[in-house]
Amino acid sequence: MPNMTALTFWRQKWRASKPPFRGIANDVRGRALYYKQDWISGICSGFGMMAPTTYIFFASALPVIAFGEQHAKDTDGSLSTVETLSSTALCGIVHSVLGGQPLLILGVAEPTVLMYTYLYNFAKDREDLGQKVYLAWAGWVCVWTSLMLFLLAIFNACDLINRFTRIAGELFGMLIAVLFLQEAIKGMVSEFKIPKAEDSSSEKYQFHWPYTNGLLGIIFTSGLVCTAIKSRKTRSWWYGTGWFRSFIADYGVPLMVLVWSALSFSVPSKVPSGVPRRLFSPLPWESASLDHWSVIKDMGKVPVAYIFAAFIPAVMIAGLYFFDHSVASQLAQQKEFNLKKPSAYHYDTFLLGFMTLACGLIGLPPSNGVLLPQSPMHTKSLAVLKTQFMKKKMVESATESIKQKATDSEIYGKIQAVFIQMDNSPVNSEVKELEDQTELIMKGCKEREKGKENLDPEKHIDAYLPVRVNEQRVSNLLQSLLVAASVCAMPAIKLIPTSVLWGYFAYMAIDTLPGNQFWERILLLFITPGRQYKVLEKAHASFVKSVPYKYIVMFTLFQLVYFLVCYGVTWIPMAGILFPLPFFLLITIRQRILPKFFPPHHLRELDVAGYDEISGSPQRSLSLSFRDREGPRVGEMEGELEMCDAEILDELTTSRGELKLRSVSVREERHGLVHPEGIVEIE
Amino acid sequence: MPNMTALTFWRQKWRASKPPFRGIANDVRGRALYYKQDWISGICSGFGMMAPTTYIFFASALPVIAFGEQHAKDTDGSLSTVETLSSTALCGIVHSVLGGQPLLILGVAEPTVLMYTYLYNFAKDREDLGQKVYLAWAGWVCVWTSLMLFLLAIFNACDLINRFTRIAGELFGMLIAVLFLQEAIKGMVSEFKIPKAEDSSSEKYQFHWPYTNGLLGIIFTSGLVCTAIKSRKTRSWWYGTGWFRSFIADYGVPLMVLVWSALSFSVPSKVPSGVPRRLFSPLPWESASLDHWSVIKDMGKVPVAYIFAAFIPAVMIAGLYFFDHSVASQLAQQKEFNLKKPSAYHYDTFLLGFMTLACGLIGLPPSNGVLLPQSPMHTKSLAVLKTQFMKKKMVESATESIKQKATDSEIYGKIQAVFIQMDNSPVNSEVKELEDQTELIMKGCKEREKGKENLDPEKHIDAYLPVRVNEQRVSNLLQSLLVAASVCAMPAIKLIPTSVLWGYFAYMAIDTLPGNQFWERILLLFITPGRQYKVLEKAHASFVKSVPYKYIVMFTLFQLVYFLVCYGVTWIPMAGILFPLPFFLLITIRQRILPKFFPPHHLRELDVAGYDEISGSPQRSLSLSFRDREGPRVGEMEGELEMCDAEILDELTTSRGELKLRSVSVREERHGLVHPEGIVEIE
Repeated sequence: MPNMTALTFWRQKWRASKPPFRGIANDVRGRALYYKQDWISGICSGFGMMAPTTYIFFASALPVIAFGEQHAKDTDGSLSTVETLSSTALCGIVHSVLGGQPLLILGVAEPTVLMYTYLYNFAKDREDLGQKVYLAWAGWVCVWTSLMLFLLAIFNACDLINRFTRIAGELFGMLIAVLFLQEAIKGMVSEFKIPKAEDSSSEKYQFHWPYTNGLLGIIFTSGLVCTAIKSRKTRSWWYGTGWFRSFIADYGVPLMVLVWSALSFSVPSKVPSGVPRRLFSPLPWESASLDHWSVIKDMGKVPVAYIFAAFIPAVMIAGLYFFDHSVASQLAQQKEFNLKKPSAYHYDTFLLGFMTLACGLIGLPPSNGVLLPQSPMHTKSLAVLKTQFMKKKMVESATESIKQKATDSEIYGKIQAVFIQMDNSPVNSEVKELEDQTELIMKGCKEREKGKENLDPEKHIDAYLPVRVNEQRVSNLLQSLLVAASVCAMPAIKLIPTSVLWGYFAYMAIDTLPGNQFWERILLLFITPGRQYKVLEKAHASFVKSVPYKYIVMFTLFQLVYFLVCYGVTWIPMAGILFPLPFFLLITIRQRILPKFFPPHHLRELDVAGYDEISGSPQRSLSLSFRDREGPRVGEMEGELEMCDAEILDELTTSRGELKLRSVSVREERHGLVHPEGIVEIE
Repeated sequence: MPNMTALTFWRQKWRASKPPFRGIANDVRGRALYYKQDWISGICSGFGMMAPTTYIFFASALPVIAFGEQHAKDTDGSLSTVETLSSTALCGIVHSVLGGQPLLILGVAEPTVLMYTYLYNFAKDREDLGQKVYLAWAGWVCVWTSLMLFLLAIFNACDLINRFTRIAGELFGMLIAVLFLQEAIKGMVSEFKIPKAEDSSSEKYQFHWPYTNGLLGIIFTSGLVCTAIKSRKTRSWWYGTGWFRSFIADYGVPLMVLVWSALSFSVPSKVPSGVPRRLFSPLPWESASLDHWSVIKDMGKVPVAYIFAAFIPAVMIAGLYFFDHSVASQLAQQKEFNLKKPSAYHYDTFLLGFMTLACGLIGLPPSNGVLLPQSPMHTKSLAVLKTQFMKKKMVESATESIKQKATDSEIYGKIQAVFIQMDNSPVNSEVKELEDQTELIMKGCKEREKGKENLDPEKHIDAYLPVRVNEQRVSNLLQSLLVAASVCAMPAIKLIPTSVLWGYFAYMAIDTLPGNQFWERILLLFITPGRQYKVLEKAHASFVKSVPYKYIVMFTLFQLVYFLVCYGVTWIPMAGILFPLPFFLLITIRQRILPKFFPPHHLRELDVAGYDEISGSPQRSLSLSFRDREGPRVGEMEGELEMCDAEILDELTTSRGELKLRSVSVREERHGLVHPEGIVEIE
């Protein structure tokens, strides 16, 4: 089986018909030009780097800490937070200095943890491996993995990255989310149990203390989940100053971890020290951690048979890393970010090989570009909407002109005027943008006249929001150094209650779902046809409008079944290690089989490369389903819209039970009716 | 002081210049005509009554149970859930049969509990009263109260009900909400403590069990609050069938109480029986309860001095009941419900006097019309949007005509056509409505042409949604009988954990806040001027638009300070019983002092009788604040709108970190860029 997938890669390589090393060479040449500038522009921005750095540091350190705890739980402490943090720091530093695309953030990811757990479960029962040689054997796996990665890089496999379409990406994302949730639940339950390798006789393991620990666990876990999710939405809040909202939105989650960890010390002193349970990890300078660096010595002790057996997991891991690393990098370099510097997929894969090797030899779980949104978050945090204010003005004048039914040329003139008035040194690129935008506005008017859609120009300009990303290496390096520093902060990190980390897992799971079209389509299945106009009212992914409902359902059900298969595989004790296999197969299925069942253009819509959003139509449900007349409508599945009396009454009633008066005229009447001044007059 | 307020009532009475008994007589005459029909129409609707009945039963039984527990806690068990339930059932039955306005729902309310607590705290320390004679003394208070109520009814004081403007009503609502919250918190804390009158030596009061009990308390309380609040919003959900959503929305809260009570039995068997703590109440057939019925015997034992002292609390209670009862009744008969049968304020107050007397003599806390939204909820649950579908059609045709810039007469014709086509037997009243609506639509168009507001006719018609309320006595009687039945269900009710009830208190507090304009204005204070356009985007109370910001702030701050005073009074140990006093004073302040500081029309807006809502303008913030040009705008407080880059980027990014593409044109481009089929073609 694994050889088969290897084969597909070879096949794909041939198609990519480029001489070996070409990709890497191009990347190196491309990035070399900017290398110096990468540093200069970073250093020049000085304190401007602080915000993105700290932001990304927390965003990538927290999961790594959580994964460390998961490691410790699953490998009986052979690996722990110290190792995951060190690996992340090490690879981060190397990549930020030598890496191709410095916007890419590296870290130990869930798949790695999963793989290492499988390796451990395999190794621990073998008397000629066992926990002792486990890491050495894992080292061999890394050796093989790095070999595979070298080959993939050398033979330009990255040209095939586009084969990983949305369907695979989102399926994988969903799997990770579910695994996180599973981890959170497992963790919560474990809080009620007495940890193995502890003497259950000691006072703090009398029945009621584990029970108390469990209850505290429930409180901290759910507490963290709720507060963390709330905090993420702060930026769009109505209340508080902009600074405050931004701060909470950026640092809310780590802040909540801090808050709940602090709260965990509010338990009365009568409670024994072990309750609530806290992070388990040896300190970096304790022997348990120091052993690692000498793992390479034990690699000789691994029986030859196992060295070759290590090839099978290696193929899986290599495939995963290749996939993760490239897709993460792709997300960090989305077209809409208007990046000015070239990509370096091949070279980065090549470098990843080396880092994997290094980590393996010193007994650390290797890091890779993380699919969790760190990488795009990084780019986002470096982005500036330079022409924000300009945009406003342009929108304004455009709208005005449209109101006055001005001709296209007039509008164009107006906007250009604004533009020049705003920005007295228009760079070529910006002039280009201006033209794009104007053209879009034209489109807007035309469509408006056709009555096709009544979209106002602003939406259009939003789509082309001119973004400037400060592409440099400093922020990445700094955040990696901070991670390195936090290795020394282990004594502090150990104070985090495990239950808070389980909450963090749940948070990560929930946080990744919205924006995952697979998830959104699953939800769509639970909306009765009569209610689907609601989806169209809000901003919604384009497929909702453009793809007939039955295809959406078919596609989603297929994906759902396939997902359950993938998830099922992870539960198989030994062969579970093959869980990436279905994802590789999916690529072939996507290209060979799916087109047989779906019309190409619908399939394209459902498996689209970018997330296409259509802004909701402001009209009320009724008007909407009556007016629009373009393409198949979900809302039109059936004639009568589902909206019961009670719902309308709810809408019209305050929770005090008052009916709301909806129109000016009525209001005036009412004043006549009950009129405080009126009374005064009587007197 | 109390006499003073009594005086104001007299003064007011004189102004109401109507011969005594006139009000009552009118009411009796008015309702007598419909009495027979009240029963017939109820019985005819048969099973149609079930839904509203059960709905209101749960809505009024739950708080009464909660108040019962509060009673038990605050009066060391002299009163408990049995008494509150019996009182509610008794008065409910009487009122539904003999009452004037059968839509009004009676029940033991928070103010009563508060008053009885003050009475208890006063009585328990007096050696010649004490816990023993407490209820007898309370009986005397009821005697005085009923006397006052008779006078108020006889001298037509109800004509003055309009003096209780929004400012007083909402201040009172807020006070209740805060008291609920306070009760919830107090309750939560008490879960950690060992209840007094229990021997702390017993095993279940070893340190760790109260602690466990407290933790369970936190879980149940917060669990109930969250789930209950969520469940209330179900009806407008996207997911699930209409039937399911309606069911959850109507019965979600009692359901959640059930669920969490059930969960409370999932604690492992090793936990002693007392954990989690459950409702304390003697069973109705136990001596503790049976004593009550003979309270009248003890009334002789009360020293004469105290009998007269009872007058002071009586004045307060009478004032409160008069206020509560009338306002609740008013809310149940809002103009927009289009009720066809007359009101009966005077007669109902008179009847309330009798019921108070009765309750007092048998040692029950009296019931009154509850300000909690039961009463309007009752009316709402009986309302039908008969012409729902007709409305749709009318909206549609109206919109069409407006589009086609038809003349008023044409539109009128069109709508009439639709109307006749829809409803082949138009009753006069309905024709009247039709005219109202058409006229409104005209207004709509005119305003639209003036470009004042772009409100679409539907909003207008919503305002005049032709509602039919099935006015009858059966639902009220049935729900009272159910309450009576639930007195016998005490053994089951006793299984509810107290912590769930504390959660229910918190839920009630939170649930009453939205729609309370006082609260909404307080929140408004926390919105920086730069963000206030957000309020205008959503549907919002009219004052936001029509009253200058500075007056809103002034008015709110005044109300806030006044509220704190009222709340402060409740904390005074003995004189706390005078807490209704500030509310009576407020009426005078409202009429004499406030007009000196606020321009009359603004004051009218802020203290408006009905809740006037203006639908949010669908445009985006920018366009909004640039376009509209009518009256003072909150959004225009300052020039630059507050919307930072990060926020816009958030809007444009999925939580996977993908940028959303906002316009069709861009999408097509993307397809060219990464194009699954494209790849297949290469092969």
